[in-house]
Amino acid sequence: MLPPKLIDTIDAFFFDMDGTIYLGEEPIPGARAALRSLRERGKRCYFVTNNTSKARHNYFDKLKRMEIEVELSEIIYPMHGVCDYLRSQAIDRIALLGTEALRQALVDDGFTVTFDNPQLVVIAYDNEMTYNKLASCIRLIHEGVAYIATHPDVVVPSPHGDLPDVGLFLPLIESATGRPVERVFGKPNAEMITGVMARDGLRAERTAMVGDRLMTDIALAVAVNCHSILVLTGVTSVADLATSSVVPDFILDGVKDLAAQAS
Amino acid sequence: MLPPKLIDTIDAFFFDMDGTIYLGEEPIPGARAALRSLRERGKRCYFVTNNTSKARHNYFDKLKRMEIEVELSEIIYPMHGVCDYLRSQAIDRIALLGTEALRQALVDDGFTVTFDNPQLVVIAYDNEMTYNKLASCIRLIHEGVAYIATHPDVVVPSPHGDLPDVGLFLPLIESATGRPVERVFGKPNAEMITGVMARDGLRAERTAMVGDRLMTDIALAVAVNCHSILVLTGVTSVADLATSSVVPDFILDGVKDLAAQAS
Repeated sequence: MLPPKLIDTIDAFFFDMDGTIYLGEEPIPGARAALRSLRERGKRCYFVTNNTSKARHNYFDKLKRMEIEVELSEIIYPMHGVCDYLRSQAIDRIALLGTEALRQALVDDGFTVTFDNPQLVVIAYDNEMTYNKLASCIRLIHEGVAYIATHPDVVVPSPHGDLPDVGLFLPLIESATGRPVERVFGKPNAEMITGVMARDGLRAERTAMVGDRLMTDIALAVAVNCHSILVLTGVTSVADLATSSVVPDFILDGVKDLAAQAS
Repeated sequence: MLPPKLIDTIDAFFFDMDGTIYLGEEPIPGARAALRSLRERGKRCYFVTNNTSKARHNYFDKLKRMEIEVELSEIIYPMHGVCDYLRSQAIDRIALLGTEALRQALVDDGFTVTFDNPQLVVIAYDNEMTYNKLASCIRLIHEGVAYIATHPDVVVPSPHGDLPDVGLFLPLIESATGRPVERVFGKPNAEMITGVMARDGLRAERTAMVGDRLMTDIALAVAVNCHSILVLTGVTSVADLATSSVVPDFILDGVKDLAAQAS
């Protein structure tokens, strides 16, 4: 439970998506009503995912399909930080281990995506990966091209059990090449949301991060020094908390409990 | 160098292929002549690889292309041990992370290769891998199907640097599923060649294993308790020997030096 008055002191909520707002294609019971209730009280809501297998508008469309009110600018995923970084380094030619949707998003953003003489290799979550594509990236890294990763998650949940994510391909690439990843974006890095907070004039002490994962969502809140709210609708159980070095400020059964607080 | 009379006491040589007999598509200088010379002195020669991206006859064809004398029965790769094991366990339905050539070889051998209700998952070197194929194997392992690996090698050499082999996908699969591999075939397991030695009546003390890798070729010789001969035409340098717990009996610049001994 949240302290009765806490919600009045919070202007903006950053919500994790999978495990917090929805599970796969299904909204989590009560999430939609809670979000509507928060919006009605004038709270800003943002939606934050580490998943880089889709483009920003795919997440926008998904929330819309679930009849959750959202603006495109409220969807936050690691590619914003990645693209800002590329521009800051004057990099416009990149090789990509990533999906066609992500490749197209990068091209739309003005980048050239190519295995031919790129300045950097970008490792994203790629459920369209082939050995040839992976080998093309590894050959470039052997040649001395640096590589970054969009996020550190080791697994992607699926209805049939966890599947390998970027965080399991990074040690494979490092073992084959002897070269470590240069930089990893996404939650729990503070920059994942500090750019948006600056853009929208949000103060950390009046902001909350809500999510189901200790090492990404709650660790992000710790990094940003905002309030952290763990929900138990995803991968984390109360038992997991006993052995965790990352501790949330508050624990709720689910996002639905924010409606009770907000009503 | 070998002791002058040693070669007279050896009846059979097991040769590693890549890095020992050839490098990629090129025979190693002097290897062809050395093999011919050994054959002329009545020595038995076998060719042993851990690479499971091809079928046995592909290696046979490759040596023939290089004008190296060879019988199909002299080619040894991990699938013999794998198939013997499957039969000993009465397993005839398997899921495969492997190439089309390997799948066809297993089908020709009488196995049903399917993701639909298999008894076991077999992880081979798969340079035709897709994320979907990997995910299909991982889902089966989540469901409780055990998995074995054809060999433990972590990398495959390529002209552009090492590429990931089975040994780098095993920790990825174990991390995603929480389940360790049940059994790993191939060098350096003694069974890789002891079946052939029994078949052809070879005695370990009159047999030599020749190869370029300490942890597979030389470790196999140690496991079999036969003579071990390291060649320096592949991945191992003299400097590597200083830090290795696996030590060869003899070191040659290359297979060519066996011709000098045999002439």
